[in-house]
This record gives sequence, C-alpha cells and structure tokens, in this order.
Amino acid sequence: MSAPSAPESQPAQDPQPAQDPQPARRRGSGRPKGADSAARREEILATAAQVFSEDGFRATSMSTIARACGLSQTGLIHYFPTKDVLLDAVMARRDQIDQAVALAPADRELRGWDRLAANAALVRHNQGQPGIVRLFTTMAGEAVDRTHPANSWLVAHHRDAAAKFREAFAEADDDGHLAPDAPVEAMTRLLIAAMDGLQLQWLSDPEYGEMAPDYEVLLQTFRERWGR
Amino acid sequence: MSAPSAPESQPAQDPQPAQDPQPARRRGSGRPKGADSAARREEILATAAQVFSEDGFRATSMSTIARACGLSQTGLIHYFPTKDVLLDAVMARRDQIDQAVALAPADRELRGWDRLAANAALVRHNQGQPGIVRLFTTMAGEAVDRTHPANSWLVAHHRDAAAKFREAFAEADDDGHLAPDAPVEAMTRLLIAAMDGLQLQWLSDPEYGEMAPDYEVLLQTFRERWGR
Repeated sequence: MSAPSAPESQPAQDPQPAQDPQPARRRGSGRPKGADSAARREEILATAAQVFSEDGFRATSMSTIARACGLSQTGLIHYFPTKDVLLDAVMARRDQIDQAVALAPADRELRGWDRLAANAALVRHNQGQPGIVRLFTTMAGEAVDRTHPANSWLVAHHRDAAAKFREAFAEADDDGHLAPDAPVEAMTRLLIAAMDGLQLQWLSDPEYGEMAPDYEVLLQTFRERWGR
Repeated sequence: MSAPSAPESQPAQDPQPAQDPQPARRRGSGRPKGADSAARREEILATAAQVFSEDGFRATSMSTIARACGLSQTGLIHYFPTKDVLLDAVMARRDQIDQAVALAPADRELRGWDRLAANAALVRHNQGQPGIVRLFTTMAGEAVDRTHPANSWLVAHHRDAAAKFREAFAEADDDGHLAPDAPVEAMTRLLIAAMDGLQLQWLSDPEYGEMAPDYEVLLQTFRERWGR
C-alpha cells in the first residue's frame, strides 16, 4: 500500500548522508559541485527505482543499474556503496514522493471517519502513478522474506500506516462517532490489506479499471456498520 | 490469495503431460518406471516451489534448482524443458494443494453468505501452511509485470476466485438475503484483496499473529451491512 494520509506528513528522510564524490567526468560546466552531486544521486535513484520495479531487487545487479544510469560500476558505488544501501534510499524516496503528493492541505484538517475517507483520494492518486505502485508491490512480494534487505522497510511502512489509521479511529471515538465494540485493530489491518491487495489486481489485470471506488465501498461499509 | 472455497472443486490439472524420461541413475530397484518418474516429478515440483518461494522466480536459475534437486541440469530439463514450464507446473500444483485441503466436504453444501463465511476457514488453514502462502505472495509480486511468465496464472487465479465469490453473492440474492443495492463487484474484489494483503502483513511481520479473525470481521461486516 501507499502510506495513508494523515494530518502531519512524515519528516522527509534523507536516506543517505549527502556526499560530494566529484564525478568529474559527468559534471556540467556552470553548476556548483554539491548541486551536481545531488542531481546525479536523484537520477540514480529514479533509474534504480524503475529497474527494481520491473525486474525486482534480487534479480538486479549493481552492474545492470550502473549501465542503466550510464555510469561505470565504480561510479555507481561512489554514490551507493552497496545494493542494499541503494535499495534503502530508493524505498525512502518512494515513500517521500507518495507522502508529498498525497497530502493535500485540506486533508490535514480532517478528523476521524473523514480522515479515513481521505484515503480513497490517495488510492485515486495512486492510479496516476503506476510506477510508484509497482515498485511497492514488487518489493513487498520479495520483502515478505524476513532476511530480505527490504523487510524492515516493509514492516515499518505497514506499522506506520497502521498507526495513522488507529489515530483516526481514536479521533472518531473521542468525537463519539465510533461504536464501542468496533473492531479497530482488525479494520486497521484490513484497510491496509485491501489497499495492497487491490493494487495487486490492478497492476496485473488489464481489465480492472479503477481501485478507488472499491476502496470507497470498504471505507463506507466500515463507517455505516461501525460509525455512530 | 488462495482460491476461495466453492461447492465444486476445480478439476485437478495435470500441468504437464506425463513423461517417462527414464532417469536411470536415480531409479529404485522394484518400482515401475511410470511411478518412479511421477514421484521424481513431484519431488522436483516440491523443491522448485520452495526455491521460488524463497528466492523468487527471476533470481533463480535452472542450475540452482537442479542442484537443490540433486540432479544435473540435463536431468532437470528432461522433466521440465524450461524454467517457464517448471513455473507453470509449480503454480498449478500449488493451487491444487490449496484447493484439495481447503474444501471440507461440509463446505460444499453451503450457499450464499454461509459459503462466503467458509473462506475464513480457508484463511485459518493457510496459517498452517506458510510455504504455500509465501509461494503465492512472492510469485504474485513478480507477476504484476504483464510480461512475467506467471502473469497469466495470477490473473486467472484472481478471476477464478472472483467467479466463486460472485456465485455465492448470486445465491444470497436468489435466497433473498442480499440488499438490492449491494456492491457485489466491489465486495468481490475487496474479499480477494484483503486475503492477499493480510498474507503480506502476516508473512512479513512476526508480531502479526492470526489472519483469520481479521478476515472474519470483513465477512461479518459485509454481511451485517449488505445482507438481508
């Protein structure tokens, strides 16, 4: 899934300390070194994200990524010393993009069920960025392996999402809009599961048009059954 | 997800025509050739299923599988000429195991909402076979790529599951137990999505104990909101 919307966005993570590896042979004429290095890092992350989302992490070598970036392997290692470090940076960047675009300012004012309902907009938004969705789904499929380098990312991603859903349910409860016997933990895991699972159907099956109306049915059914 | 339970089980598929490749060096003394070959095929499928579920399809070579089976690569190719053919057979065998065990005879009598509810038992059953669940999740993550050799399996698997859910909703409707405005198509996709998505959380997060109670909440909430 993509992270659900929440009043506060996550702090933007800089997944790697900024480096200034002076890749002289690729530097443009007028730009300062730091900006050049940051731009090159960003290019590598975008390219690696695409390669990982298409071919997976395990089946991709650093030399494949270097080639796709137009770099030597040594050049790539200058920025990202290992494939695991590169993966961490790619997934952190993915989550940042996802957060940045998903959080319309209006959504930050929402509480309780209305805040939960705003997740349908996130699902709708995701329909416009299949690359981001596919990177998530492909990496998640590998990362169920608890020894996979992306496992901790996946678990943290889900737990962070769960914390936000739980917070919205707590607001609904505080405002008197939640049935006392509402199964909050189960609904939290189901809202995450449905987002992940709809993405799987949507990416794989060309006949499946829109995820957002389905997700709205889930949100609305929970609200009608468990809201007050 | 695993296939939902249904009154009729799928016909057992023989994913590959039976061959009799006479792997003389591994043959036991007394057994007839055909049985020996079938047993060896089954061993290869079980081993390949484990390797694919742990390392994925893309990142696994035929030589890795041959080694894991104690065969030469030529020996393996004798049974499964390509990795794609082997994958098809592995996934067909997975679905057969899943179907065979999931369908308790009593469930074949169920109709409508009761038949839908029986899927919670399937989820509970899956908790006892993490290897089968993991093979599904790992392959599904790769197979969202529409050029992946398992894409057609994934799409067929989901469509088959959807047909069974739809059939159960139609029964509920025939029996007067479904609201006329019930969002059947959305609920069908959501029931599949939730099963797939809960498996993702369950496999990756050691703190997540049981999927079945969560799935029951979804089934029960749909029934309470949309049943009659």
